[in-house]
Amino acid sequence: MNINEIKGLIDQLSGKKIDMYRNDFLLTWEKSRAELDATFLVADILREMRNANVSPRLWHSGIAVSNFRDNSTRTRFSFASACDLLGLYVQDLDEGKSQIAHGETVRETATMISFLSEAIGIRDDMYLGEGDKYQREVAKSLDEGVATGVLPDRPTVVNLQSDIDHPTQSMADLLHLAHHFGGVDKLKGKKIAMTWAYSPSYGKPLSVPQGIIGLASRFGMNVTLAHPEGYGLIPEVVELSKKQARESGGSFSHVNSMDEAFKDADIVYPKSWAPFDVMQKRVPLLHSGDNAGLKALEQQCLANNAKFTDWECTEEKMKLTKSAGKDMPQALYMHCLPADITGVSCKAGEVADSVFDRYRDDTYREASYKPYIIAAMIFLGKRKNPAATLKALLERGMKREVL
Amino acid sequence: MNINEIKGLIDQLSGKKIDMYRNDFLLTWEKSRAELDATFLVADILREMRNANVSPRLWHSGIAVSNFRDNSTRTRFSFASACDLLGLYVQDLDEGKSQIAHGETVRETATMISFLSEAIGIRDDMYLGEGDKYQREVAKSLDEGVATGVLPDRPTVVNLQSDIDHPTQSMADLLHLAHHFGGVDKLKGKKIAMTWAYSPSYGKPLSVPQGIIGLASRFGMNVTLAHPEGYGLIPEVVELSKKQARESGGSFSHVNSMDEAFKDADIVYPKSWAPFDVMQKRVPLLHSGDNAGLKALEQQCLANNAKFTDWECTEEKMKLTKSAGKDMPQALYMHCLPADITGVSCKAGEVADSVFDRYRDDTYREASYKPYIIAAMIFLGKRKNPAATLKALLERGMKREVL
Amino acid sequence: MNINEIKGLIDQLSGKKIDMYRNDFLLTWEKSRAELDATFLVADILREMRNANVSPRLWHSGIAVSNFRDNSTRTRFSFASACDLLGLYVQDLDEGKSQIAHGETVRETATMISFLSEAIGIRDDMYLGEGDKYQREVAKSLDEGVATGVLPDRPTVVNLQSDIDHPTQSMADLLHLAHHFGGVDKLKGKKIAMTWAYSPSYGKPLSVPQGIIGLASRFGMNVTLAHPEGYGLIPEVVELSKKQARESGGSFSHVNSMDEAFKDADIVYPKSWAPFDVMQKRVPLLHSGDNAGLKALEQQCLANNAKFTDWECTEEKMKLTKSAGKDMPQALYMHCLPADITGVSCKAGEVADSVFDRYRDDTYREASYKPYIIAAMIFLGKRKNPAATLKALLERGMKREVL
Repeated sequence: MNINEIKGLIDQLSGKKIDMYRNDFLLTWEKSRAELDATFLVADILREMRNANVSPRLWHSGIAVSNFRDNSTRTRFSFASACDLLGLYVQDLDEGKSQIAHGETVRETATMISFLSEAIGIRDDMYLGEGDKYQREVAKSLDEGVATGVLPDRPTVVNLQSDIDHPTQSMADLLHLAHHFGGVDKLKGKKIAMTWAYSPSYGKPLSVPQGIIGLASRFGMNVTLAHPEGYGLIPEVVELSKKQARESGGSFSHVNSMDEAFKDADIVYPKSWAPFDVMQKRVPLLHSGDNAGLKALEQQCLANNAKFTDWECTEEKMKLTKSAGKDMPQALYMHCLPADITGVSCKAGEVADSVFDRYRDDTYREASYKPYIIAAMIFLGKRKNPAATLKALLERGMKREVL
Repeated sequence: MNINEIKGLIDQLSGKKIDMYRNDFLLTWEKSRAELDATFLVADILREMRNANVSPRLWHSGIAVSNFRDNSTRTRFSFASACDLLGLYVQDLDEGKSQIAHGETVRETATMISFLSEAIGIRDDMYLGEGDKYQREVAKSLDEGVATGVLPDRPTVVNLQSDIDHPTQSMADLLHLAHHFGGVDKLKGKKIAMTWAYSPSYGKPLSVPQGIIGLASRFGMNVTLAHPEGYGLIPEVVELSKKQARESGGSFSHVNSMDEAFKDADIVYPKSWAPFDVMQKRVPLLHSGDNAGLKALEQQCLANNAKFTDWECTEEKMKLTKSAGKDMPQALYMHCLPADITGVSCKAGEVADSVFDRYRDDTYREASYKPYIIAAMIFLGKRKNPAATLKALLERGMKREVL
Repeated sequence: MNINEIKGLIDQLSGKKIDMYRNDFLLTWEKSRAELDATFLVADILREMRNANVSPRLWHSGIAVSNFRDNSTRTRFSFASACDLLGLYVQDLDEGKSQIAHGETVRETATMISFLSEAIGIRDDMYLGEGDKYQREVAKSLDEGVATGVLPDRPTVVNLQSDIDHPTQSMADLLHLAHHFGGVDKLKGKKIAMTWAYSPSYGKPLSVPQGIIGLASRFGMNVTLAHPEGYGLIPEVVELSKKQARESGGSFSHVNSMDEAFKDADIVYPKSWAPFDVMQKRVPLLHSGDNAGLKALEQQCLANNAKFTDWECTEEKMKLTKSAGKDMPQALYMHCLPADITGVSCKAGEVADSVFDRYRDDTYREASYKPYIIAAMIFLGKRKNPAATLKALLERGMKREVL
């Protein structure tokens, strides 16, 4: 894309009525449709600027805090890449190495790490009912810091996965779909099957499927959620998705059959997750460090899981789907990675080897949007007039690399 | 503050006779009064430059080494923020991940990490008699590296807390006082009560109270040190503080009553620390890994501690103090954080909940000076003519952020 | 060196026929002599640019990935310093903190960490037969990522130590020799003794001695490899070194006597390593986590080691050597550090205290080349016309630091 085409995208952004400055990005359903579209646009603009060797570096100094309360590879690198692209230095808040164990409150810690910080990314997805709460507590503390004049500016909080939503994943996924189908507007009427799949592991978070149904239902898509009985998501998120689907001119169906979900789907997203009620039982056990109880729950859950090994994305099931265009005879397969691939990473898993292999590059392309989505979220939280700033960056013309 | 006012501060700096270039910042009492004042000035200048969106970035590349031999949140972030503000990339010397365990000498390690380094921050406060010694060993190694031509430049060593002093804390604290009372010169005659307070924990370092009495006694303040019998600090530091208080036109009193210390105080700093002789006994036990011995010492110390639960900064005690101005009917409460707050972080602690809460924002403001104090220490160790460099940075006018 | 002299070095570089763009640096023997010389030249140019306060910063954003599968101090700092000098932010791929344990394939991980990455440094030296293999797997994955358009650019892979070679060490070592003796061409005819030495430890990798003989044999040097019987290196590397020595007009001899190796040597490199067959036996034990087996192997190896405590670089042995010029009556002593020094780091070790002490600064100088060698490897992997880029950097004249 040349500079004039990038300017075209910025002009589109100028037209959006958004209120994202000094706001955080925690749940996609707290954002208006214009705000979601603005995020996609800024992600595309930043990527195209980089590709055209124009540095989108906003800052010559500034800290971005990463707070991973659970392991991470891809999100860690996505966050670091996004922050570095904008000029921020990532300082990890490693709670093992910090004094937080000695009894610091969230409010105090949030303030102490933010004197020269511009963004805070938080992953906290282990405990149902807590990750989102923690992120809001951090955000509230930052508001207080700004109100009392202790903090010179308000760092933007970006949800890098909570118990409820995983917006950097779902937004990257949807941007991938938009590029695949030729635009966000082309998603209207497409059928997406967000379906549970078997995995030999246990306890995968609910935030990915919740994030997908909570976001896809905003774009007039026909969303089908499928899982075995007993594998429900947070009921409020399912209800919200239904409502959103209606309002956006799409539909929402909730079924207990993978075949039914795959039938005529344009997109399939087969992925394992733990049952909601198991996740609920897990929280007090994790808190009390009851390893025997956790072990027993795991055994029970794995035994139950084992009844559903046929929930696998096989070649047969893929034949039920529709063409996703672009020389693709069947649906577009999606996954947040890593996938449990039958015969590769486990004996029986979420997806057949041959299916995964055919879509491997698509899943990698899907992941490639995440750094730019994160950068866009930070950008929009930190700039009052993002289109004007992007134009200023283009005009500055600082090269990202000397060739 | 506008650019002209910042220039005014730089002009004040020009007038100071200082010898800080290629010197380290290990103990405040090794610095002249002019050097302390210069550090305050540079900290204020860097903060005001940042606030005016002028980047004080000195370097386009360069490593800052952080060497935390004890846990840290706020100092870690302060150091990272300071270094990033000046353009340095922080590389952690994590002795767990390094080969130091395999028998490297301090001299060798100090050289190996310094080929392209500009600053080294060290926290080593666990062992009485060792932290300061280690920092000097590193500094000496760097001198040798420069003398032999192995190192192209001398990285500045900044003490991020030793067994003796905690200058980034005490200097930030004093700068906070200077801003609170309207200038460094306004500190003369103010009474500061550095007093022990009860905590249910054990073994907190002596460097904070030592740092405070060793620094406050330089500014003509009336310093009162208070603690129960048996909770003395390093005797030499107390003696030095007495001498400094006399020389600066202030006073020093040493009492065994919190009430007496609080009486008519302008500033109170109630904080727990371990008795000096306990810290001495701890060293061989820590070295030999004698966990039973450590446990026994802890039990003995906690039992002794328990006699002094009334050493708490309560509303009643605060009533004994004077007004600290600025609509503050009582003294200014200070703490290096995190504080042990009664009923919040523990059953009985250093400070009453209501007192802490009233001064919460003040303690946060106090902490906010630390990144700038650290940046100033590095700056002054690395620039022969700091005022000229600061003027050059102002004239360059590189914006910290694109708005 | 002034700017014109630096231009002279760049002109020399222009004349080299090299094919390093989009290639990795894994083994020195995969590089042509012109490519080795180009690497030395770029390392010198980058160092001289820095010394002349011209920033060689190539990038205003970009990620460098460090993947240390074994502990490291000096290489970690060298890599960080090199990347920072070129403008890259180092993000550590800490496999303990990542989801790799959950079954990600190398291909997937390599892609996920590379969307905005320019360089990947890998240390993987624990398992004979695996480190180099792993690095090639990463490299191949990156090629696929570029071929499918998933990656916008090809990050350069730099071997930070494998089971076979340690090119950042050996190249830094040879650059040190070139500077010591007055040029790469002066190495012809010099005798270098790469000899085993006793150490009370066990299991040191073979990559350093292999790297040295595999590289020194390229420059017409007379290479002598010495070790007790049973302490052989990978046979293919020894054979290759013999062949290279012949082709470059040097010689290669393989002896079982330290004295013989030291006789008339210009350079001595006495260093402990584990016997090849022990390293081979170790791999299945490490893989199966057979600690008892490892312990038994260690005991056997240490018992065998103990027969060779006289393989120590003593004053007596040094007397057998030749003058290395520059007021040096005996050979130049080299070591990759840390050395096992008799009476200092152990009772009996690789080198006598007095010998090591005399050459201490030389070994530190030797180490100082590593950051620049790494930077040169990255630079040459990322720039099609490196001489033109270096000239552009000189002309840009961006100062590394504001004085």
